[in-house]
Amino acid sequence: MNFSALHQQVKQQTDASLLTLIDELPDYAPRLKDAMRHALLAGGKRMRPLLVQVVGNTLDVPKKDQMAISMAIECVHAYSLVHDDLPAMDDDDLRRGMPTCHIAFDEATAILAGDALQALAFTVLADAPLSTYAESKRGQLLSILAKSAGYAGMCGGQAIDLASTGKTISLEELKQLHRLKTGALLKACVEMVAIVSEGLLPQTKIDLMAYAADIGLAFQVQDDILDVEGSSEKLGKPAGSDEALGKNTFPAKLGITGAKQELEMLHDNALQALARLPYNTDSLIAFSELLVKRDH
Amino acid sequence: MNFSALHQQVKQQTDASLLTLIDELPDYAPRLKDAMRHALLAGGKRMRPLLVQVVGNTLDVPKKDQMAISMAIECVHAYSLVHDDLPAMDDDDLRRGMPTCHIAFDEATAILAGDALQALAFTVLADAPLSTYAESKRGQLLSILAKSAGYAGMCGGQAIDLASTGKTISLEELKQLHRLKTGALLKACVEMVAIVSEGLLPQTKIDLMAYAADIGLAFQVQDDILDVEGSSEKLGKPAGSDEALGKNTFPAKLGITGAKQELEMLHDNALQALARLPYNTDSLIAFSELLVKRDH
Repeated sequence: MNFSALHQQVKQQTDASLLTLIDELPDYAPRLKDAMRHALLAGGKRMRPLLVQVVGNTLDVPKKDQMAISMAIECVHAYSLVHDDLPAMDDDDLRRGMPTCHIAFDEATAILAGDALQALAFTVLADAPLSTYAESKRGQLLSILAKSAGYAGMCGGQAIDLASTGKTISLEELKQLHRLKTGALLKACVEMVAIVSEGLLPQTKIDLMAYAADIGLAFQVQDDILDVEGSSEKLGKPAGSDEALGKNTFPAKLGITGAKQELEMLHDNALQALARLPYNTDSLIAFSELLVKRDH
Repeated sequence: MNFSALHQQVKQQTDASLLTLIDELPDYAPRLKDAMRHALLAGGKRMRPLLVQVVGNTLDVPKKDQMAISMAIECVHAYSLVHDDLPAMDDDDLRRGMPTCHIAFDEATAILAGDALQALAFTVLADAPLSTYAESKRGQLLSILAKSAGYAGMCGGQAIDLASTGKTISLEELKQLHRLKTGALLKACVEMVAIVSEGLLPQTKIDLMAYAADIGLAFQVQDDILDVEGSSEKLGKPAGSDEALGKNTFPAKLGITGAKQELEMLHDNALQALARLPYNTDSLIAFSELLVKRDH
């Protein structure tokens, strides 16, 4: 299967599994359930499940372990987007061309939907059937997910983002912000798959984590570049919103040429980390190219 | 130790442990860290840790297991209060006589602090040192916590509350709302302690869960009665706010006398469940009396 077909398959599987997850919830709070469904299913690119599957296939991790990790990560990712879009945060009306959760529903329901999706992430990971080996690592999986979602990860990064909006921060501070805000969850995808891979060499885990860190940051640099150069139509949201919001970005810091050089450097580092791995890394290479060459 | 002294001790231990938990977080997002500390430490009554300790002592559950459960539950409880108080939700400026999180900080920080506290709850429960027996139940503990916090528990109850505000609902619907909104987390306290109690008889767990369900609902009935009859000074927030908000309450449904009868009935049921237990239940009786006789 070529990489693009694999991505399509992951999208379809993820969408179907997330839909089932929501449909299985009891019906007593229908508006909340609809808002959670809206948040989970509004056309995500499913980059994180794709990463989980690519790493998981490379390391020969059973499909059901991959699926549990993917579902949990997507719940966290979806909740974070709902809360980031709120009026008190980035105040976005559109996401992937669709009304954001608080626009499609209301602010209170969006706050609650985010909260319930975070809890659902942990329910999924605590309850999902796992292989025997992964079962012995369930506590660790939950620990990695919680840490990457919380203060020491995504929430901390978002707080630094809020605190630094409209202020000048150094390049190193900007990188630290995104290592936490976007990078932590991408690294968690790779780390969770790595720890359920029986007999994995410690050095392989280190190299995979380095790859994840580099592509995580590259992902954000490309996001910033697209906000300057991309089309609102393809992005499904207004381009140029970073500058309007006074956000610190890589193009603002380095110029658009400098940002592209940074992206290239991060991409090269990621490929170097892959070159150290004792596996066929074609799909991992393809994944990193998808991230840095995407137009939305 | 008498019950009041035990409660004081639990308060002090809980406050100290939560303070340590926050202080140990890295410093890169100081405003978020301060907001999390504010939310966790603003004078809570620590009823849930007290319940954990009372049940835990009755069932001879090791202190470190009790502590892990208590910390996690308090993080969830604190996050829920921060989000409930937001302008889009109940729009409360005061809680326990202190400015609420979004007043003391700002709305974005309060949303993030709640999010990070929910993640912290799972970090605590995933990482805390546990006894050997409890360690074998860690996945189940995390599952119970996640379920009680999410759609099938607290978030679901809050959504029903939002949906029914300003509308007439039946007494059964009102009870269902509170079984989820307040009751689920209180039941989770008891269930988590019960599953780490080695060799516990299934019937004992059933009786303890019945006790938890009854006192959970009684807790809410008394809350509603206090909102009608209590003093704003003792409550640390304006009395009468339920009526102003068009909330469905037990006094609105049953009259104040009917609400008090309901409270008495729930209390009696709780005591009957205790009478079936093969333990000295003095402290469990004292706990239920504390709930139904409190004036704030």
